[in-house]
Amino acid sequence: MTTYNIALLAGDGIGPEVMKEAVKVLKLVEERNADVNFELNDVLFGAAAYFATGKSFPEQTKAACDKADAILKGTIGLNHEDSQKIPVDEQPERGALLPLRRRYNTYANFRPVYLPKGLAHFSPLKESVVGDGIDIMLIRELVGGLYFGEKETGVDAEGKRFVREVLEYDEDQIRQIIRVGFEVSMKRKKVMHNIHKSNVLKSSVLWNEIVEEESKNFPEVEVINILVDAAATYLCLKPTMFDVMVMENMFGDILSDQGGGILGSLGLMPSACKGPEKSYYEPSHGSAPDIAGKGIANPYSMIGSVALMLEMSFGMEKEAKNLWAAMQSVFANGYSTSDLSKEGEANLVSTAEFGDMVCEEL
Amino acid sequence: MTTYNIALLAGDGIGPEVMKEAVKVLKLVEERNADVNFELNDVLFGAAAYFATGKSFPEQTKAACDKADAILKGTIGLNHEDSQKIPVDEQPERGALLPLRRRYNTYANFRPVYLPKGLAHFSPLKESVVGDGIDIMLIRELVGGLYFGEKETGVDAEGKRFVREVLEYDEDQIRQIIRVGFEVSMKRKKVMHNIHKSNVLKSSVLWNEIVEEESKNFPEVEVINILVDAAATYLCLKPTMFDVMVMENMFGDILSDQGGGILGSLGLMPSACKGPEKSYYEPSHGSAPDIAGKGIANPYSMIGSVALMLEMSFGMEKEAKNLWAAMQSVFANGYSTSDLSKEGEANLVSTAEFGDMVCEEL
Ligand SMILES: CC(C)[C@H](C(=O)O)[C@@H](O)C(=O)O
Ligand SMILES: CC(C)[C@H](C(=O)O)[C@@H](O)C(=O)O
Repeated sequence: MTTYNIALLAGDGIGPEVMKEAVKVLKLVEERNADVNFELNDVLFGAAAYFATGKSFPEQTKAACDKADAILKGTIGLNHEDSQKIPVDEQPERGALLPLRRRYNTYANFRPVYLPKGLAHFSPLKESVVGDGIDIMLIRELVGGLYFGEKETGVDAEGKRFVREVLEYDEDQIRQIIRVGFEVSMKRKKVMHNIHKSNVLKSSVLWNEIVEEESKNFPEVEVINILVDAAATYLCLKPTMFDVMVMENMFGDILSDQGGGILGSLGLMPSACKGPEKSYYEPSHGSAPDIAGKGIANPYSMIGSVALMLEMSFGMEKEAKNLWAAMQSVFANGYSTSDLSKEGEANLVSTAEFGDMVCEEL
Repeated sequence: MTTYNIALLAGDGIGPEVMKEAVKVLKLVEERNADVNFELNDVLFGAAAYFATGKSFPEQTKAACDKADAILKGTIGLNHEDSQKIPVDEQPERGALLPLRRRYNTYANFRPVYLPKGLAHFSPLKESVVGDGIDIMLIRELVGGLYFGEKETGVDAEGKRFVREVLEYDEDQIRQIIRVGFEVSMKRKKVMHNIHKSNVLKSSVLWNEIVEEESKNFPEVEVINILVDAAATYLCLKPTMFDVMVMENMFGDILSDQGGGILGSLGLMPSACKGPEKSYYEPSHGSAPDIAGKGIANPYSMIGSVALMLEMSFGMEKEAKNLWAAMQSVFANGYSTSDLSKEGEANLVSTAEFGDMVCEEL
């Protein structure tokens, strides 16, 4: 019997309601696998934690994460107005999410931009553009660059406010993520798009040097260098030309959300954040405070994150595969939630009903 | 009789061939306007200049630009391989384009993401998403941020290569572009989307402060704050929700090219770069070395940049309007170039034929 300890960080907004469905699925997987036991540990995180304890990533949560085998995170953040009520440095992104990433050095963020043909109707792109489906593994460096560089704000000699923040990388940081890109490419189509902006950024110049050096260790992988702006154009125009894409942190933030756009919703993009020892899993979408509590958020991205966890942290590949298939079936049977579909296009079900259906399919 | 001196920077790749069509149009406009005289001054710029003179922005070109009333630029840059033959700091982007922007402090970059219903077929987006057409004025800060901050590369004490580059803004730089955003919004729908990443970047925190301050001077304009990643999602999902968008330099680079993507091509996006005293105009697309010299590049974006110049630098609004209309008519008559359309979808014409047709329509 193997026991996996999982820290559950439900978070804010729709976080708790989609997390509930994730837990449902986890319990079912446990039931089905006599030799696996999930120890679930619910802890506070984000704005919810701030209002309860004065810290958005409290000590107790840190301790729970430290001892966990994997971390399953919901969503964090409030609307623009409410978040102003929290001091800038305790706001859930700066006070909880970034420290979580840094604490476990989760440098490799996997965001599958995956739209099988059967879900093509969700996409804003023409059928002819989606073709046989979109299947991109977008890999984003997650603990470097502008996100973690020094920041300075102040007032200059003339009384003008200014701000300076640093985008920094060293070769080790770049090399470790580039290697992940190559390794994933080897398991897929052996074509890697390297996203950069070397005509302006010196960080991209170093980045590209490392790509070239590492490519010697992966001679079978074809590297295609493409500027980040051109990548943004082609992700709309011809998404099927991409298989593996690798890029630095801020580029990854923007392009992965563009990826959510071409899928039809960030609700269709789960995500894994892998560190050397520990990984955490989260949906790519935000906390959607406007629809929180209404029971209409789609738990696809959250449950998909469970699938990623089963596969990547626990080596349960078969279970992960079944879970993906179960989710596709629910859509294929004509069901959807109202954040993804309009009345008439699908039978609209609630967050909980969607979770139940996934369990049934499983 | 008013004489306007225009520096022509044809540049590299398809630059010279699209510039030729721009000149055709300019000559026609001159012919039609008895009281206007265009003095055209062809000068070297970009890789072409580097190989001829050793400098990608030579003194002679600077002098020509200094005395010009407006600058019309083609495209610059070589393919990845050829550009490696030029020392990093003389590569056309770092050695010519950025210095041009800095020299004339062209802080306001206007990129119309404009797709009238009649051109909707060029878009990769579904007809239902394009709706009655897309009409966004994307305004990008063009002389600050990461593009112009200090850059440091080196080797640390442990022998590791590293790079640090600074994203910097002061309140004056932010204020001047925000004001442009508000002014343009006042002339349009009075709704401005402010693109930021204040949950991570301190520069966005200052940016948003200035937006709030300036909004007091434009009480009629509704400001909608949206994270850059969310903006990338919605630019695909629901582009018609945007009218004016304002953002910092790097965000603008990426989102405007995404804008080109949803139009169907960067070839459909002209651009104006406005400074306090002088402005320059350029297509948003690159130099496309792979199709250079074949006579198939569409000159729409280049001729559109002429229209922007006529309007913004010379106050010739009527002529600009006619020029836009003439270009739309060519498409409406079923003609296109092969970079935009496939055989069968349109009557394919060459770059020069397209230019001729625009002149005829005019
Ligand atoms: C919430 C925010 C800090 C975060 C990021 O920018 O990384 C989010 O947008 C994401 O993509 O995971
Ligand atoms: C060529 C490059 C330096 C430039 C930029 O990044 O600004 C281009 O991509 C643009 O958008 O005008």
